[in-house]
Amino acid sequence: MRLVTLTTDFGLTDSYVGVMKGVILGIDPTVTIVDISHDIAPQDVQEAAYVIYAAYPYFPPDTIHVVVVDPGVGSRRRAIALRAAQAYFVAPDNGVLSYVLAREEMEEAVDLTNSRYHRPTVSHTFHGRDIFAPVAAHLARGVPLTEMGEPLTEIATFPLPQPQMLPNGEVIGHVLHIDRFGNLILDVRGEDLALDDGIVLEVAGRRIQGLRRTFADVPAGALVAYIGSTGHLEIALREGNAAQSLDIKRGDKILLREAKKGEGKG
Amino acid sequence: MRLVTLTTDFGLTDSYVGVMKGVILGIDPTVTIVDISHDIAPQDVQEAAYVIYAAYPYFPPDTIHVVVVDPGVGSRRRAIALRAAQAYFVAPDNGVLSYVLAREEMEEAVDLTNSRYHRPTVSHTFHGRDIFAPVAAHLARGVPLTEMGEPLTEIATFPLPQPQMLPNGEVIGHVLHIDRFGNLILDVRGEDLALDDGIVLEVAGRRIQGLRRTFADVPAGALVAYIGSTGHLEIALREGNAAQSLDIKRGDKILLREAKKGEGKG
Amino acid sequence: MRLVTLTTDFGLTDSYVGVMKGVILGIDPTVTIVDISHDIAPQDVQEAAYVIYAAYPYFPPDTIHVVVVDPGVGSRRRAIALRAAQAYFVAPDNGVLSYVLAREEMEEAVDLTNSRYHRPTVSHTFHGRDIFAPVAAHLARGVPLTEMGEPLTEIATFPLPQPQMLPNGEVIGHVLHIDRFGNLILDVRGEDLALDDGIVLEVAGRRIQGLRRTFADVPAGALVAYIGSTGHLEIALREGNAAQSLDIKRGDKILLREAKKGEGKG
Repeated sequence: MRLVTLTTDFGLTDSYVGVMKGVILGIDPTVTIVDISHDIAPQDVQEAAYVIYAAYPYFPPDTIHVVVVDPGVGSRRRAIALRAAQAYFVAPDNGVLSYVLAREEMEEAVDLTNSRYHRPTVSHTFHGRDIFAPVAAHLARGVPLTEMGEPLTEIATFPLPQPQMLPNGEVIGHVLHIDRFGNLILDVRGEDLALDDGIVLEVAGRRIQGLRRTFADVPAGALVAYIGSTGHLEIALREGNAAQSLDIKRGDKILLREAKKGEGKG
Repeated sequence: MRLVTLTTDFGLTDSYVGVMKGVILGIDPTVTIVDISHDIAPQDVQEAAYVIYAAYPYFPPDTIHVVVVDPGVGSRRRAIALRAAQAYFVAPDNGVLSYVLAREEMEEAVDLTNSRYHRPTVSHTFHGRDIFAPVAAHLARGVPLTEMGEPLTEIATFPLPQPQMLPNGEVIGHVLHIDRFGNLILDVRGEDLALDDGIVLEVAGRRIQGLRRTFADVPAGALVAYIGSTGHLEIALREGNAAQSLDIKRGDKILLREAKKGEGKG
Repeated sequence: MRLVTLTTDFGLTDSYVGVMKGVILGIDPTVTIVDISHDIAPQDVQEAAYVIYAAYPYFPPDTIHVVVVDPGVGSRRRAIALRAAQAYFVAPDNGVLSYVLAREEMEEAVDLTNSRYHRPTVSHTFHGRDIFAPVAAHLARGVPLTEMGEPLTEIATFPLPQPQMLPNGEVIGHVLHIDRFGNLILDVRGEDLALDDGIVLEVAGRRIQGLRRTFADVPAGALVAYIGSTGHLEIALREGNAAQSLDIKRGDKILLREAKKGEGKG
């Protein structure tokens, strides 16, 4: 019994996701399928890259993660599968695994050229159904990765957002992701921070003083910064939506600096 | 093989729900997981209380219901698990089980203090992943409730909305829940009603005469009252959205009274 | 181990879908349940008819497809189950299987009158829970269709949208479905088209010249026509939303004609 996860921009209104599951279970009925998200913004490869990065560490070893956000479907972009220490990933070769591969060594990768493991007819617009789903199912039932196509040593990645260290010791972080609650997840990780309690964040003209453990440590309506559940710095508005209230979008900058003398602790 | 259900306000856009499933299946791969809802309005404990109350009676015995709407995560609110005749419930101790416990005897309850059944590192902001999911999985694989922590005899509950009986025999009911179709579910149960056919409902300046069996008993565009599928009185607009059309929100009042002499049957 | 799929207009905010799954798994815990869609527009039988039609061919043989979009619930409309070569279908008798039955022979059908296979108490407003879910579960565990009720030779269907062939050789197609990406799926199938490369589509005052293989064959922001993954002609706006941009809704007309002499290839 193997786990296959699905992350797509297909939404849940159409039958696209259900159809992928039908194809997988038709090949290996013992697979357990878990949805990670199907509400990635249409063709937003970067959002998908974040979502799978935030999710995969919490699945059992050898889980097969299928990620289909694929604006180039039917073009010459490759379809790939790869093995890391922790898991398998099946996806278009468009950078959607960039964040995962910033943390994981790629142990083996293939270009999914062996049509034996695809659906008999492959459409030009729905490789989720015709290539990625069947490949995942065949991996689940034990077909070795190397059977699926030609070995690859390099795949497409895009540069990750990185916090910028200024000469004066200040740090400019970026909003990596905005979640359902409107919480801002930054590209700054907890271990990057030397500043600790004396830290001040400046965001959209507002100032947040000090890190807390959780939102419940501040009163309703207050902004709060804390190390979130993925290890990244987050900013939330207690019992509100920080992104909406501050009019923040992905990529926006946030300044981190040491508290100045006389600057009160928030 | 055991059933675990999930009810949260995490939405399906982020990976939070998928991650909880990964944690559960990593501990017990034989569990079947059923989503009840992940679209509870953010931090709306009362809505979650209604949704799990409406759902749990239809699951097989010993199903484990995990409910995570948790504005106080990381604060001193307890994490609890309890056993009723029908099912297990795992949730923050914030009243989210109030409606269930209005109907079910609590047979055994514990404060989830035994970290052996949590994830090795527990974050301050995602106990769904770090406490509730692993506890549910360990319950599923047979660990006794009493192993999970200290026994509790009392947990947090909030008062339930109750229909108000007026001296003149009229009843003021309240909107307990508004569903996806805009149907209004009241805090009045079918068995509370003596009025029967001669009943009149007054809502937002409109009058509904008599109970029907189902929406299809009135013409398109008409308001209709009936005993809904959970045993509660409901008001719908046939082929329309009653809540939007009447501008009703949760908690709003509805008057129930006997038809007056000469008042036609609708 | 059998597959049951669910297609409804219940949404995922309320517990209706979870409850149906609880009922199914209470009767047959070995069933694997796959969601096709629960976001059919409320009571939109025609949308549901399209969605199940587009999905069922991709599921393994003998999958049981439950479709509950049921504006007439509790009225005299029948509840039915039927067997086709490929699959079983369980649904209200309101035409929701019209598109499926345009492609599939109905081999056996019954009026679901045998209350032994329903829930002990059947509400007037939620047959998804009380009739369709338990019938599907009993089918899954091997109860023959003929046990479920009286045989039927005819069920309700509505006429399918059909492309209209004009005397001058032009074709008027209709928008059968608009998907999450805003792609327009037409009632014209690839095999209906003789026109091939020289084809021109006229839609909302815009002209699309020639068929392409996939969206990636045109630049961002361009309209593109191609044979979609279900074999139907589709129109998309690359990296955009064609339906919104052209202000198109289901049922709208699209003219297909041969390119005129001197009309450039797009």
